[in-house]
Amino acid sequence: MTIKLLTTGGTVDKVYNHLNGELCFETTNLPSMLKQARCNVDLELDIVMLKDSLYMVDTDRKDILKKCRSYKEDKIIITHGTDTMAETAKFLGEKIKNKTIVLVGAMIPYSFGKSDALFNLGCAISAVQHMPKGVYITMNGKIFPWNNVMKNKKFGEFNTIK
Amino acid sequence: MTIKLLTTGGTVDKVYNHLNGELCFETTNLPSMLKQARCNVDLELDIVMLKDSLYMVDTDRKDILKKCRSYKEDKIIITHGTDTMAETAKFLGEKIKNKTIVLVGAMIPYSFGKSDALFNLGCAISAVQHMPKGVYITMNGKIFPWNNVMKNKKFGEFNTIK
Amino acid sequence: MTIKLLTTGGTVDKVYNHLNGELCFETTNLPSMLKQARCNVDLELDIVMLKDSLYMVDTDRKDILKKCRSYKEDKIIITHGTDTMAETAKFLGEKIKNKTIVLVGAMIPYSFGKSDALFNLGCAISAVQHMPKGVYITMNGKIFPWNNVMKNKKFGEFNTIK
Amino acid sequence: MTIKLLTTGGTVDKVYNHLNGELCFETTNLPSMLKQARCNVDLELDIVMLKDSLYMVDTDRKDILKKCRSYKEDKIIITHGTDTMAETAKFLGEKIKNKTIVLVGAMIPYSFGKSDALFNLGCAISAVQHMPKGVYITMNGKIFPWNNVMKNKKFGEFNTIK
Repeated sequence: MTIKLLTTGGTVDKVYNHLNGELCFETTNLPSMLKQARCNVDLELDIVMLKDSLYMVDTDRKDILKKCRSYKEDKIIITHGTDTMAETAKFLGEKIKNKTIVLVGAMIPYSFGKSDALFNLGCAISAVQHMPKGVYITMNGKIFPWNNVMKNKKFGEFNTIK
Repeated sequence: MTIKLLTTGGTVDKVYNHLNGELCFETTNLPSMLKQARCNVDLELDIVMLKDSLYMVDTDRKDILKKCRSYKEDKIIITHGTDTMAETAKFLGEKIKNKTIVLVGAMIPYSFGKSDALFNLGCAISAVQHMPKGVYITMNGKIFPWNNVMKNKKFGEFNTIK
Repeated sequence: MTIKLLTTGGTVDKVYNHLNGELCFETTNLPSMLKQARCNVDLELDIVMLKDSLYMVDTDRKDILKKCRSYKEDKIIITHGTDTMAETAKFLGEKIKNKTIVLVGAMIPYSFGKSDALFNLGCAISAVQHMPKGVYITMNGKIFPWNNVMKNKKFGEFNTIK
Repeated sequence: MTIKLLTTGGTVDKVYNHLNGELCFETTNLPSMLKQARCNVDLELDIVMLKDSLYMVDTDRKDILKKCRSYKEDKIIITHGTDTMAETAKFLGEKIKNKTIVLVGAMIPYSFGKSDALFNLGCAISAVQHMPKGVYITMNGKIFPWNNVMKNKKFGEFNTIK
C-alpha cells in the first residue's frame, strides 16, 4: 500500500526569510518531517504547489482534483493552508467518492518553535490508512468529514458546522 | 466521547538532568504536548507510573490492565517505553477485547530536538478514535495489532513478526 | 555591577501570530532567553518599546538616548532591530562617551528554530562587561565600534564600513 | 586574526542515542552551532578529543596544553565538560601566560531543547577577542580568571572561590 502525499504549501511549509523579515516558501518541509517522525509508511510525495491557501483560486482546486483522480493510489494526504482547507475539502468531497483523502495543515510553521505540524501529520497518516473512502480534514486531533467542517478563524481551530 | 490517556513513562517523558548529566523522569510532558498539538479532543490524563519500560515488571502490567478495565471509557491511549511495549500490548491484547487500546511511545524524548513523540501521539489519537476494538501499537506511522508486532532493536523501529 | 538591559524590540522579540499568519510583538523574550542561558549576571530589564526598527523615528532614538543617560549604570545592552541598528548606534555614539553601550539583535526570532538570538545575547553580555567606554554593535560574533559598522542587507550581516 | 577553537567534547557535544537510550558523542556540534550563530569570525576548529570531562586524565590535559602551545594563534577557545573545567583551566593558567584562552561548555547539550550552549559560545567568542592574555572560564554570562573559579555542583553553576 502506497500513500500519495500531495503538497500544496500552507503554513506547514512557511519559513522565515531573514533578509526581509517576511514569511515565504522555499521548498516543502515534508521530507524533514517524515524523517523526524521516523515514519516507515510507504509514501510518495508530489509537490503540486507551494501556496498560501488564501491565494488559491479555482484553477488550483481543479489541478488538485485532477491530480487526485490521476493517482493510481486510493489513499491520499493533502497538505493545505488552513484558511481555505474546508473549501477545498468540499470541492473534492463532492467529486471523489472512491478514494480516502485526508487534508491536513498547521497553525504554526514546522520550522518555528512549538509547531503543531508534526502532530497533525501523524493524525493524517493514521487516518488515511483506516478511514472509509471519502474526503476528510484532520486538525486539532479530530477527524471531520468534508461536509461538516469549518475553520473558526477567531480561535484558530476547526469545528463541525452542525 | 472521552479518551483516556494512561501514562506509564518511557522515552517520551525522559528529561535531561543537568546536575548529573543523566536522563530521568520529572513529570509527564503530555499536557505540554497536547497544548503544542492544539489538540481539542476530549482527553483525560491518568499518570499511572513514570518508568523506563526495561524496568517494568509483572505487577506493573497487572496495574495497567486493572486500570484499563476500571475506566468507563472504551478508548484508551497508553504511553509506554518502546523496549517492552510489544510485551505489554500482548499482555493486554489477550485479556481485553471490548475496548480500543493504542500503545504509543517515542524513540527520542519530547524535550530533546528532533523528537518523534508528537507525531506518534498524533497517530495514536487518530487511531484510537477509529480502529475497531482491540489492542494496537502505533509507531513509525504504522498501526500494528498486538499479536503481530515486535521492536527491531537493531534499527530502533517496529515491524510485524510474520 | 548591574548591567541595564534596554529592550526596543526587533527581530529577537518577534513571534508568530497563528490567527492571522503575521509576525508581531507580544512581549519581550529576554527573561526566557536569560533563563535558558542560565545567566547569573546582575541584569535589570527596561522594556522601552517593542518596535520593528524600520519604524523607529527620531523621537524613539531620543527616548533611548534619554534612558541611557538617566540610568545610574554605566554598562548598557540595547536589543534592537537590525535594519536601523547602525543608525541608532551612531546617534548614541556621538552623544554618550562615559558609558559602555552594546547594541545587539538577531536575524531570526528567538522563538523560531535555528535562531541566532541567544548567541548574540551571549556576545553582548560578555562585551559590555569588558569593553572600554563607548558605543558598539555586536553581531555575527564580531564587535564593531559605532563609527565603523553597517548592515549589509544583501547578505544579512554586519560589516565594517572602512 | 584567527581564533583557534579546540574541542574536547563535554555536554555541548553530547547527543541522544535512540538505540540504547544513552547519551554519547558522535561528532562535534560546533560547525552547526557557528552556522546557527551566523558567526563570521575567522575560526579554525581542532577536534582534539570528544570526552566527558569526568573521564579526562592527566595525559588529556597535557595534550591540550601541548596543542595550545603549538598553535600560532594567541586567541584560543576550548570547549570542555563542566565537571573538571576549572581543573583544566588551572592546569593551563599556571603554564600559559602569553595567550588569551577561554574555556567554555554547557549544562544542557546543544542538540536538546533549551540548551545554554549557544549563549555560552557567544560569551566565549566575544571574550577571547577582548580579554587580556590569560586563561579564563566563561559560564553563566560571567568571565572568571583561572585562579578564582569553581563549579558549584549543587546548583550547576560557576562561582568565584574567594
